[in-house]
Amino acid sequence: MNGADAVISTLADNGVRACFANPGTSEMQFVAALDREPRVRPVLCLFEGVVTGAADGYGRMTGHPAATLLHLGPGYGNGIANLHNARRAGTPIVNIIGDHATYHRKYDAPLTSDIETLARPNSLWLKVAETADNAADLAAEAVQASYGPPGGSASLVLPADCAWSPATRKGPVLVAPSRPAPDPAKIEASAKAVRAAKKPVVLMGASACGEAGIAAAARLSAHGVRVLTDTFIARQPRGAGLFAPDRMQYFGEQAIKDLEGVDLMVLAGTTEPVAFFAYPNAPSVLVPEGCAEAELADRREDAQAALAALADALGAPTSAQPNALSLPDRPSGGIDARTVGLSIARHMPEGAIVSDDSVTSGAPILAATRTARRHDWLGLTGGAIGQGIPAAVGAAVACPDRKVIGLTGDGSGMYTVQGLWTLARENLDCTVVVFANHTYRILGVEFVRTGSGEPGPAAASLLDLGNPRIDWVSLAHGLGLAAERCETAERFDDVFASSMGNKGPMLIEVALD
Amino acid sequence: MNGADAVISTLADNGVRACFANPGTSEMQFVAALDREPRVRPVLCLFEGVVTGAADGYGRMTGHPAATLLHLGPGYGNGIANLHNARRAGTPIVNIIGDHATYHRKYDAPLTSDIETLARPNSLWLKVAETADNAADLAAEAVQASYGPPGGSASLVLPADCAWSPATRKGPVLVAPSRPAPDPAKIEASAKAVRAAKKPVVLMGASACGEAGIAAAARLSAHGVRVLTDTFIARQPRGAGLFAPDRMQYFGEQAIKDLEGVDLMVLAGTTEPVAFFAYPNAPSVLVPEGCAEAELADRREDAQAALAALADALGAPTSAQPNALSLPDRPSGGIDARTVGLSIARHMPEGAIVSDDSVTSGAPILAATRTARRHDWLGLTGGAIGQGIPAAVGAAVACPDRKVIGLTGDGSGMYTVQGLWTLARENLDCTVVVFANHTYRILGVEFVRTGSGEPGPAAASLLDLGNPRIDWVSLAHGLGLAAERCETAERFDDVFASSMGNKGPMLIEVALD
Repeated sequence: MNGADAVISTLADNGVRACFANPGTSEMQFVAALDREPRVRPVLCLFEGVVTGAADGYGRMTGHPAATLLHLGPGYGNGIANLHNARRAGTPIVNIIGDHATYHRKYDAPLTSDIETLARPNSLWLKVAETADNAADLAAEAVQASYGPPGGSASLVLPADCAWSPATRKGPVLVAPSRPAPDPAKIEASAKAVRAAKKPVVLMGASACGEAGIAAAARLSAHGVRVLTDTFIARQPRGAGLFAPDRMQYFGEQAIKDLEGVDLMVLAGTTEPVAFFAYPNAPSVLVPEGCAEAELADRREDAQAALAALADALGAPTSAQPNALSLPDRPSGGIDARTVGLSIARHMPEGAIVSDDSVTSGAPILAATRTARRHDWLGLTGGAIGQGIPAAVGAAVACPDRKVIGLTGDGSGMYTVQGLWTLARENLDCTVVVFANHTYRILGVEFVRTGSGEPGPAAASLLDLGNPRIDWVSLAHGLGLAAERCETAERFDDVFASSMGNKGPMLIEVALD
Repeated sequence: MNGADAVISTLADNGVRACFANPGTSEMQFVAALDREPRVRPVLCLFEGVVTGAADGYGRMTGHPAATLLHLGPGYGNGIANLHNARRAGTPIVNIIGDHATYHRKYDAPLTSDIETLARPNSLWLKVAETADNAADLAAEAVQASYGPPGGSASLVLPADCAWSPATRKGPVLVAPSRPAPDPAKIEASAKAVRAAKKPVVLMGASACGEAGIAAAARLSAHGVRVLTDTFIARQPRGAGLFAPDRMQYFGEQAIKDLEGVDLMVLAGTTEPVAFFAYPNAPSVLVPEGCAEAELADRREDAQAALAALADALGAPTSAQPNALSLPDRPSGGIDARTVGLSIARHMPEGAIVSDDSVTSGAPILAATRTARRHDWLGLTGGAIGQGIPAAVGAAVACPDRKVIGLTGDGSGMYTVQGLWTLARENLDCTVVVFANHTYRILGVEFVRTGSGEPGPAAASLLDLGNPRIDWVSLAHGLGLAAERCETAERFDDVFASSMGNKGPMLIEVALD
């Protein structure tokens, strides 16, 4: 048993079942060890942004960390954007970052880099192994640390000699920490504030949006308290049988308008809402003037139990009328995000998982699927586009019996297009829907909102994806994936229905323009 | 004039002529300002690894920094791998990293991240603007700082309000620093050591490999001193009329064997050579036992002038017989890296630029082009694959009158495949040659070398790109690029000859397997 064996078996002993990998020379011992540890499934990705996004999708669906395998500082660097999203989602992930042998680092070989500094901002735990036995101990610590709460990336730097040197033992099995129970004082204060308020709202963060939290939110809603979620939620169960809270609006002025007259905001597993971006002469904080705030549970605490306790304290009904299943009719005519949303709602099977990176196309689909069959929705938590395809990969690995639907814009899809190959290679049960509007549409909107006027030729060229037009069917075929382009609502309805009826991966290009 | 105008005009005043960009909302004011500053050419890339790799290729060819435009921490993160390569190459680059408005950062909005920590490892200069006028001053400082010596990334974090607030003035025009003149004491000591040595070698680093340095090396060679370069050189002029120094071998044991009996190593613009990776029971330092070392010039000093001074001090011939033009015959039969190299040597036009990320296919092409028409060769300086296509983009923007040839493996090409779209969009005069062996071949070699035995099924799956096979012709078509697959040496010779005769971008897939 060498250090790599000890690390991978310790990860497995602590519950790790998948390793999304893009290895290099310094990780070869770890790769070899994967052959000797059948409990961990290796999944090759052609780019590290796919590796980390897949680990995020996997962790959101299982609640447990996958391992990533990354090649020194540059490999980790390529994975940063999706680790940023995972940090915002609170997803447990264990990064194994290969490094030069301990004695080799001082020579500053070409791939030497300051991994610790690079990894610090997105790691809630970060250590560097010094020996094989130490590496095994740290592997156990990393898994435990990744649970937080709230969860996040634990990054273990694994020098090559720690992997290839003999290990005398595996690391321990450590207990995963759980969230602190709700604070009775906060519950009492929140209940009192709600009773006194004229127009209270409850704002739910990611940790509040489990099934129990949604059920408690339904009770609060039945009691007359409006419930919203943060704009982007790591994982939200939705559809028939489940209460559907509203969302905080993305644009600040719309959010402020939506909250007009609200005099109390109760925060459940989240913090004071703020604008995604600042704009000249627009507020940063999205709480109406004079509105009081009450923290029911912070991001660490068990916000779901806190919501249930608040409902109890308020004497809310013990059960609430659930959302009934209601599917739309077949859409027809020109294709757009609205008609696509209707078709998705019609055909998405029970238990589907939606990985959403669709940017400007997302809202109509969220609206259309409110009463669809029950599903989970994975949002773009950190705003770093390029999450949709990778998170779909990870969700499909995590849940092989559930259909995964990846929604992506064309701009966002290009960031991590390499994920299509892993969908094909692993024959994952996933349909990727690309909204091809051949522009960074959101930036066209934001350009005006930031007070930049109308784009001139240079600016317009930086917002345009239409020259040349990206042919997503060719791209998908090049990466081994079946694909279709749909130019009418009817055609999309047929193709999407068919993809929902078949197992395996495919891509559908929605020709928006 | 707002801060963005002041920054971009200050960059232009200080010689910046291109901005490789992948902007987001926080950069919209900068995008708008590009319309008002016609001296700076905006080039959109669909992924930040292409942005930074293009800036590296541009900087290597012009000697001046391009600007990059990156979207907060995640956007910068996506660009880190190629900035790592640029750091190793000593390439001047000015990164403009957009950030939230100064007053908005404290709210920890979803895209907020610790940009300064992320950017520190690969930045030789890093500052955060605080006002519009301050941003303009810092833009001038950044350009100056990017020159080093040695050159590197200067990173300016530009909060959105510094961009949109009124500026009262532009920043100054600052003088670019030059390299320190050679140190007479080092020249004298090196000359004395060479005279005393039985088997001296001179090792040239990137900064030594300009035309003057190569000419001085030719004189040393004519005098009987063997001259080598580092394994990976940022930019090396090669071909007919130019002396072709040997290269340090990539694998340590081959390097040590190649240097057998060497009793003096003179270092010109580089440091003691070390192995790219450590291996069990293999040395890190690639200097033979008992070999003395003499530093002629460090990485900061003018190593080219130092080499000329050393040649003078040794009484080397004042001119040396140049490499005569010698082109191979048309290859035939099965296609491999050797036959491709022969065709490249035959047809590559005078002044071509080769951007090399071909990994295991590179050596035969280097050998074949030694006496080809004069060209520049851009090497993979930092070992972070995914440099080839982006650096070709940047070189083609920098040198519109020269043909660019991008060499890439299929594994390395997939990291930054998005660069193909920019080649098409800008109609750059570049032919990308993809060596499609459907495997991470280098890792198959390294797996064995690291003592990992023979790959089992799990390990083999992590080294294999063949399931599914990537169809590079479809991929290229999907991104708007003409493409051909070549399965014989003759076919490649014809297609490559044709692409050299036409202006504009195309991709050739070399079907190796």
